[in-house]
Amino acid sequence: MKELRTLYWKASKLYVLDQRVLPHRVRYVVAVDYRGVARAIKDMTVRGAPAIGVAAAYGLALAAVRTKGLNPQRALERLQRAADVLRSTRPTAVNLFWAIDRVLSRAERAVTNGENLADAVLEEAHRMAEEDVEVNRTIGRNGAQLVRDGARVMTYCNAGALATVGYGTALGVIRAAVEQGKRVFVYVPETRPKLQGARLTSFELKTAGIEHKVISDNTAPFLMSRGEVDLVVVGADRILATSGHVINKIGTLSLALAANYFGVPFYVAAPVSTIDFVRSLPQVKIEERDEREVLEVSGKRIAPRGVRAINYAFDVTPPELVRGIITERGVIRPDELMALRERAGV
Amino acid sequence: MKELRTLYWKASKLYVLDQRVLPHRVRYVVAVDYRGVARAIKDMTVRGAPAIGVAAAYGLALAAVRTKGLNPQRALERLQRAADVLRSTRPTAVNLFWAIDRVLSRAERAVTNGENLADAVLEEAHRMAEEDVEVNRTIGRNGAQLVRDGARVMTYCNAGALATVGYGTALGVIRAAVEQGKRVFVYVPETRPKLQGARLTSFELKTAGIEHKVISDNTAPFLMSRGEVDLVVVGADRILATSGHVINKIGTLSLALAANYFGVPFYVAAPVSTIDFVRSLPQVKIEERDEREVLEVSGKRIAPRGVRAINYAFDVTPPELVRGIITERGVIRPDELMALRERAGV
Repeated sequence: MKELRTLYWKASKLYVLDQRVLPHRVRYVVAVDYRGVARAIKDMTVRGAPAIGVAAAYGLALAAVRTKGLNPQRALERLQRAADVLRSTRPTAVNLFWAIDRVLSRAERAVTNGENLADAVLEEAHRMAEEDVEVNRTIGRNGAQLVRDGARVMTYCNAGALATVGYGTALGVIRAAVEQGKRVFVYVPETRPKLQGARLTSFELKTAGIEHKVISDNTAPFLMSRGEVDLVVVGADRILATSGHVINKIGTLSLALAANYFGVPFYVAAPVSTIDFVRSLPQVKIEERDEREVLEVSGKRIAPRGVRAINYAFDVTPPELVRGIITERGVIRPDELMALRERAGV
Repeated sequence: MKELRTLYWKASKLYVLDQRVLPHRVRYVVAVDYRGVARAIKDMTVRGAPAIGVAAAYGLALAAVRTKGLNPQRALERLQRAADVLRSTRPTAVNLFWAIDRVLSRAERAVTNGENLADAVLEEAHRMAEEDVEVNRTIGRNGAQLVRDGARVMTYCNAGALATVGYGTALGVIRAAVEQGKRVFVYVPETRPKLQGARLTSFELKTAGIEHKVISDNTAPFLMSRGEVDLVVVGADRILATSGHVINKIGTLSLALAANYFGVPFYVAAPVSTIDFVRSLPQVKIEERDEREVLEVSGKRIAPRGVRAINYAFDVTPPELVRGIITERGVIRPDELMALRERAGV
């Protein structure tokens, strides 16, 4: 992954790696305004909760540049409107909202202090991008202690460098274990319908030289029943501190149920910015996406004409199925999340 | 499905509906000898435990024709050799072995009685094809009592007319409920890697005018967690009477685990010929198929070059997850299977 970056800023434009065409093509989409960033998030050119958070921050940076010459109040209003558009792209992952709120409050401070708004917003976006990689490395170190030498680890979807600015969360745990000299074998569920596992996670693991095999998602419980999986580590799009529920890519629940039944430890790796300390489950919208994502693979229809599909992008794993949540603040149980807030002052 | 038959015998040839190209194309493969039938079973031109059993019976009928002029002992030896080839095609479904054994013992009786061998074998194959449809209708009636008006039923893979000679087992239950005037909505998991759900089950349900939607396999547990599924009915490739384990298409275990956790009744619909009264779990080979079935969809590769896959065709569901087995002899619990043998004299 040395040569590929999920996103980068250059000459006042945001370059977004087009994850829709990986692993077959490497192509960047260039966003010149916040609407371009919103499109890239919505159509999953960029995906992964941490990555879309930082992308949205850069989207606000692009919007801030266009406020030049406006009075501070008008400039902030413009930024708010851009924020609304960016927020509307994907409803489930909380990092998006967290990132936007953080940039907006930095913008307000800039106005109050009489700083240059565009510079302040861009600087904040850069800081978030840098922090993301640092946080992931810490998550990796914290999680690596759970990975024994020779472990057979199952992950899900892509919670790797491509889902973040770099290094990855669940894949960060695997990377850190490998960096510590441990031998690790990774099961990669393909992750229907958009195949982020088969396309992206295997791409990252291949590049990193980490041994792995792809499986259809429905093979995971059988492997666990045979005692062939030592650990499951997945990412998260939103973790509810109020109840401990974990919202992640559709199919996560299936792995959690099987892991629970067959005694395989099931962990979630995610930054504290993924934790929602406010909302409870009924307040979270589970995104439904275009049914064609299910009915077509590589542009070819798999079902008869006229047949419909249901396409939830995420599911909800109850806290009793989660052994622990690996964060940059340590590995915590789902029922300790509110205490983390007090301890960490987040 | 009125116009399509999974297989039929005409002018001393077996016509096999090519399920690999459904629903986009309707094409029959013609088998003129038992090797052609073996190929069609192995490459999944014909699939579904009951259907491959009957196909193998017709394969022996094709072999029996070629024994004309041989002395009875040589003829039986030829038939045995054909049986060996047919048995080697797919190791997991037990109906294949059951059907071959039944035809062979009919052949031996024919020789003993001085009957025409080819006629006797073909007659037995025809009888098995007819019985299959009758048995499925009885399974359907027995299972339909479990389906309430307005039920939302989840099935898996294709346990329909296409998996049998006609009517289907799990889909037979749904058909029978609909024939009784009940409104039924069916969830159709796509069934990776070969997409029998998306391609075949939706095709059958569409033809029959039964309301349904396709889902990615990994969506099933989430729907159950939301209380949106009333009943799960799947087929089986082999049911172990000694322990109650159900061997069926990979992914069945995932549905059984979720159904169990969220309190959704999980039933298996299968003829008594699917029950293995002899072997225990360690004696059953779980077929592994070509990894390209996972790595390619519609002929297009989904993972990077060089990446490998694991491709088990079946998984094993433990008896404690199975509410009941719907057979032509009634609905029985997994721990009642041995008693069924004594009762039914099978």
